Amino acid sequence: MAKNMFLYWGSGSPPCWKAMIALEEKGFSGYPNKMLNFSKKEHKGEEVLKLNPRGQLPTFKDGDLVINESDAICFYLESQYPDKGHRLLPVGKEEKALALQRAFEVANMRSGFMQDMMQYSMSTKEEDRDKKKMEEFYTKAREEIGRWESYLKKNDEGDFLAGKVFTMADVFAFPLFAICVRFGLQLEKFPSLSAYYKRLSERPSIKSTWPPHWSEGPGQSAMSQI
Amino acid sequence: MAKNMFLYWGSGSPPCWKAMIALEEKGFSGYPNKMLNFSKKEHKGEEVLKLNPRGQLPTFKDGDLVINESDAICFYLESQYPDKGHRLLPVGKEEKALALQRAFEVANMRSGFMQDMMQYSMSTKEEDRDKKKMEEFYTKAREEIGRWESYLKKNDEGDFLAGKVFTMADVFAFPLFAICVRFGLQLEKFPSLSAYYKRLSERPSIKSTWPPHWSEGPGQSAMSQI
Repeated sequence: MAKNMFLYWGSGSPPCWKAMIALEEKGFSGYPNKMLNFSKKEHKGEEVLKLNPRGQLPTFKDGDLVINESDAICFYLESQYPDKGHRLLPVGKEEKALALQRAFEVANMRSGFMQDMMQYSMSTKEEDRDKKKMEEFYTKAREEIGRWESYLKKNDEGDFLAGKVFTMADVFAFPLFAICVRFGLQLEKFPSLSAYYKRLSERPSIKSTWPPHWSEGPGQSAMSQI
Repeated sequence: MAKNMFLYWGSGSPPCWKAMIALEEKGFSGYPNKMLNFSKKEHKGEEVLKLNPRGQLPTFKDGDLVINESDAICFYLESQYPDKGHRLLPVGKEEKALALQRAFEVANMRSGFMQDMMQYSMSTKEEDRDKKKMEEFYTKAREEIGRWESYLKKNDEGDFLAGKVFTMADVFAFPLFAICVRFGLQLEKFPSLSAYYKRLSERPSIKSTWPPHWSEGPGQSAMSQI
């Protein structure tokens, strides 16, 4: 089945990474794919635009079906191939409700602080950044990351975001935590999140899809004071 | 079952409206609920905060389960009660893929122009608005709304966003189209969207959940020149 799929992706993009983790978890390792370079604007090229007129990545095909939104790709794979690979949405009512709630709750990390903070710190040199503005970002970030820390703290060591098993919640959340770490987040301030992060970094679906360009050099430091 | 549910909601909020349409479609009419007033900051009150620490609406319970993210509520209802009421995710592979793609694609309307345009026009008086900035918004909006017009144009009259039946795509998209109309969008410029909009406005799940405060007075005009 995997050989009928095709994924265009970019290194370090959380939506691409989500789709890639889901593909690995669902047992589609080895699917044909092509990495495109965002800084060369390759995602705005003809090859992508004919499948995805918005020129965004991921751009994905399963046979003749085109599915481009990362959430749609993840839910499509799980819904179409529920018994293949790892089940990402638990069958039990409570476990399923929690996995869905946590998965979609991840968007609050992005809208709550990441988007504005990353935009500001990437467009403003460290010495020119407004201290009060950065403090406001830190406060929001501490509150939001603190929530995820408290979810994990309630769990046993070895657990995942929505309980005893790896679910869609982990697929959606991990790439955003990793972006925070790449931007300097000091995980030792959040011990349960830190243990979870280290453990999931070694999970095959995550390790094998780690953004390749991250090994070429360090990231930003804007989140180091959170 | 409906009597074990509870929804806190606010009038005119697309996430609340999505959840309410899904609840009606899935046959849970008459579920207990409470409308809260955003301008009085009732969504930041104790009643909501104890279930939803972010103080956001919707805030939803099914028995003891708390599910607050609107996407999670919609997918939970469909996944837990697939055969109750109207099926929102088709069983067929192609139809399901398209419904998921279109449903999550709706987020591009918000991020593509609505969020920035609504924020700017609500915080800046009409006479003080920068014409060039507004023109940029209009261009983006025409492109994005034009995409949805083209999806509907390809369909037969009477069809929905993802084909012959009403799906999650319509649940996710309709409230955003309605917000655009409330902000002055002239639908006659988009004839297929206009016909779809009028037809869906009469659909029981949508008509019965129409934001009550919209009948009290007119909306904004910022989108009238799109």
